[in-house]
Amino acid sequence: MKMIDLNCDMGEAYGNYAMPNDDRLMDYISSANIACGFHAGDPAVMQQTVALAIKKGVAIGAHPGLPDLQGFGRREMKITATEAYQLTLYQIGALSAFVIAAGGKLNHVKAHGALYNMAAKDATLAKAIVQAVYDFDPDLMLYALAGSKMITEAKEKGIVTASEVFADRTYQDDGTLTPRSNHNAMVTSEEDAINQVLNFALKQEVNSITGNRIKVVAETVCLHGDGEHALAFAKLIAERLKKEGISIKAPNR
Amino acid sequence: MKMIDLNCDMGEAYGNYAMPNDDRLMDYISSANIACGFHAGDPAVMQQTVALAIKKGVAIGAHPGLPDLQGFGRREMKITATEAYQLTLYQIGALSAFVIAAGGKLNHVKAHGALYNMAAKDATLAKAIVQAVYDFDPDLMLYALAGSKMITEAKEKGIVTASEVFADRTYQDDGTLTPRSNHNAMVTSEEDAINQVLNFALKQEVNSITGNRIKVVAETVCLHGDGEHALAFAKLIAERLKKEGISIKAPNR
Amino acid sequence: MKMIDLNCDMGEAYGNYAMPNDDRLMDYISSANIACGFHAGDPAVMQQTVALAIKKGVAIGAHPGLPDLQGFGRREMKITATEAYQLTLYQIGALSAFVIAAGGKLNHVKAHGALYNMAAKDATLAKAIVQAVYDFDPDLMLYALAGSKMITEAKEKGIVTASEVFADRTYQDDGTLTPRSNHNAMVTSEEDAINQVLNFALKQEVNSITGNRIKVVAETVCLHGDGEHALAFAKLIAERLKKEGISIKAPNR
Amino acid sequence: MKMIDLNCDMGEAYGNYAMPNDDRLMDYISSANIACGFHAGDPAVMQQTVALAIKKGVAIGAHPGLPDLQGFGRREMKITATEAYQLTLYQIGALSAFVIAAGGKLNHVKAHGALYNMAAKDATLAKAIVQAVYDFDPDLMLYALAGSKMITEAKEKGIVTASEVFADRTYQDDGTLTPRSNHNAMVTSEEDAINQVLNFALKQEVNSITGNRIKVVAETVCLHGDGEHALAFAKLIAERLKKEGISIKAPNR
Repeated sequence: MKMIDLNCDMGEAYGNYAMPNDDRLMDYISSANIACGFHAGDPAVMQQTVALAIKKGVAIGAHPGLPDLQGFGRREMKITATEAYQLTLYQIGALSAFVIAAGGKLNHVKAHGALYNMAAKDATLAKAIVQAVYDFDPDLMLYALAGSKMITEAKEKGIVTASEVFADRTYQDDGTLTPRSNHNAMVTSEEDAINQVLNFALKQEVNSITGNRIKVVAETVCLHGDGEHALAFAKLIAERLKKEGISIKAPNR
Repeated sequence: MKMIDLNCDMGEAYGNYAMPNDDRLMDYISSANIACGFHAGDPAVMQQTVALAIKKGVAIGAHPGLPDLQGFGRREMKITATEAYQLTLYQIGALSAFVIAAGGKLNHVKAHGALYNMAAKDATLAKAIVQAVYDFDPDLMLYALAGSKMITEAKEKGIVTASEVFADRTYQDDGTLTPRSNHNAMVTSEEDAINQVLNFALKQEVNSITGNRIKVVAETVCLHGDGEHALAFAKLIAERLKKEGISIKAPNR
Repeated sequence: MKMIDLNCDMGEAYGNYAMPNDDRLMDYISSANIACGFHAGDPAVMQQTVALAIKKGVAIGAHPGLPDLQGFGRREMKITATEAYQLTLYQIGALSAFVIAAGGKLNHVKAHGALYNMAAKDATLAKAIVQAVYDFDPDLMLYALAGSKMITEAKEKGIVTASEVFADRTYQDDGTLTPRSNHNAMVTSEEDAINQVLNFALKQEVNSITGNRIKVVAETVCLHGDGEHALAFAKLIAERLKKEGISIKAPNR
Repeated sequence: MKMIDLNCDMGEAYGNYAMPNDDRLMDYISSANIACGFHAGDPAVMQQTVALAIKKGVAIGAHPGLPDLQGFGRREMKITATEAYQLTLYQIGALSAFVIAAGGKLNHVKAHGALYNMAAKDATLAKAIVQAVYDFDPDLMLYALAGSKMITEAKEKGIVTASEVFADRTYQDDGTLTPRSNHNAMVTSEEDAINQVLNFALKQEVNSITGNRIKVVAETVCLHGDGEHALAFAKLIAERLKKEGISIKAPNR
């Protein structure tokens, strides 16, 4: 049976600031990347989000980010590989405590925002993050951008990976994402986005911006949880996948 | 053979701000309570301090504090029991990650500053903190003020405790610390402080401020690491204990 | 002509976390208390909120809070009077910079959350906050709870005050708010809340929970901006006040 | 009479973490750049450092940095020009409040660490920071790296500048600093450092690493306050300058 993982960043509330979609989004996804208090999330949010994921049977991932709450972890910071290692390890440990206390099991790690993007291109940072995952628990999975340095470094270390693709981003002929600075970086029609996900799931391929069919390893699809339309789109895509006989579940190990 | 534990708060540096005594203090103590990033400490400091403790054979404890770096966790905050549970669990998990990555073993938890003091008197807070320790790992020990609610609640939960006493604080006839607001709250002479520790170790008793000998359960003695004289005093007390045939080691389990 | 001030806490967004009501709420109020980055707000939000207030002709106040973003400044912290002075001064200065840069004029200071509540009862804290306002600019107004220590201390210092009352809180026979722990602390009907505001504005009186008419000095009414119904209620109350011939404007100096 | 300004970063303590040299360093310098709470400093430290500068007759500058206490503002962050404007304005305002309350006068602004370095090379950031200074008070001075974009942008805006040189850094033939990555970036001998300062003050020139005498505009010399030897070096340089008949004072306006 065909299957694909739908992952979504969760638990990105903070203190008085709520993320009201989280509860219902959990109904449509198979993996939750839970913020760990650096770019978003706090101990209360983490506890509640872990409980929610366990209740809904969603695989739990730590979602470490840069220490920049104001910038939501989206502003690049020139950190060293050692700092990347340390902040990743810290955040995995913090989230893991809530998973342990709730009787759950930590499944994966996915870096957030600028940390995700920097490590996708920078092998040194990627190696440091992978090492942190490995040193905490070599059985954790790493979710990372398909074709990125993170995937390469994780495989080299023997960490099981899930290559991440996007429903709403277009792809170039070489299988990389069209840069956001380009006018055609985004998939603008909902139907196109859904078809892209179906192609990923059924054929491991995507139509590039030049119209070519290209192969892309796609083990997990990232859904965005914070836009206005996020909930409706998650529902739609989950329904279409089921209708096509594709099971939504966290990657097999 | 007689023995006692000497514990000290460690890893309370932050970023550019060093705590230069830590390295050498580790030579005289048997338990290190390592700050976890809320009142002090950061991922880099935590990694280095854990490595140091392992190298020197010192038992490692998580030292969670209130989220108040500016106040060094010493200002009381009106947090709920749920918040106490969550911030304790978060911080234990974060420190634990560095211990795991370094191949060590987390031995105990000791609350810091205002959290320590509030939970000593408030059974609800104490119960929440104990529950966090228990939910993370019921085999962890809890170090807490001798005679406090923390000790009571931990025992009730089945957590092994170490009752903490102080070399430099005086005691009242009922076995409680003389409040700091009193003129005679502090042991001012070094010789008196050392004798007090010897009495704790050898006889489990202390001379109260009224001159009576009273019984106090004393399983671990807290040394302060941040004063100017801290290092010299730690050395002195370690030497005197050894001379009296008292072994300095983390509590037996 | 009768007049009353409607004030509302504004600019309590932070980074990625929006407060979408702010723009439209500004249409119904006469004074904005703008968060200064400690309990909420950041430099971007502060700049935008100041610009909005100037555009809509709303009087600008600094709204300093405790350094507790996670607790939204609502958790009491045991700070000294000196610390209260310092954190108030810091935050007034920070907000003032945006007002100066935008060519506006800072009108008042209103403490936030736990700082507001603690200083209402504690004359030492109140005196420290008043001193910070005075030292920054003795011509600033202070908005504070009617009948509080803050009002007393400000008057003694020669600071012009606006006594604050609430549309949605009930009052006791002695003119103080019914404690939130009481079952009847809140005005539950919208019509009652509006009538209470009209009574404040027209007669400087309120119906107490025992049914007595009591005098309360009421120079500014606090509207809450963050509930779901906040916007609709602000609109309603503004319309009713106008219909009754009561002008909504910041206090005369 | 010849004169030069000696400036030093001050008030970079935080909470429990002291900077014990500040008091005595103030005896040898003419300008203090006081941290504003983002990369270091807190409201208490700011108040104390402002008081100290006023007492010792040292010109007071705001020293805004990136919001990165852990990295001490030394890690580059990819902020927008708008963010640079906002965080500069916020911090100038915050510091200014303490200066106003103490009856002093704010003299200048100098950016800190990574913000200083990024804006030295990036005209867009430089323009934004200059605009923040200008919008707060067009009569403030800007201290910035000699030959940097900051100096260019400030002059264009009509802000009075002080071009900063370093006692302990070597210079290349084009008048720029030898990059820190080069082996010969630092002036290693104390005598060379002093001679370099004397050459700056007396002749506005420096010996480059290739041995050429080159012209460098030098209106203020930056002393480092945080090394172990900082205090002794500051004393030495102040004495030598006086001996050579060079007056140490903040730039004339």
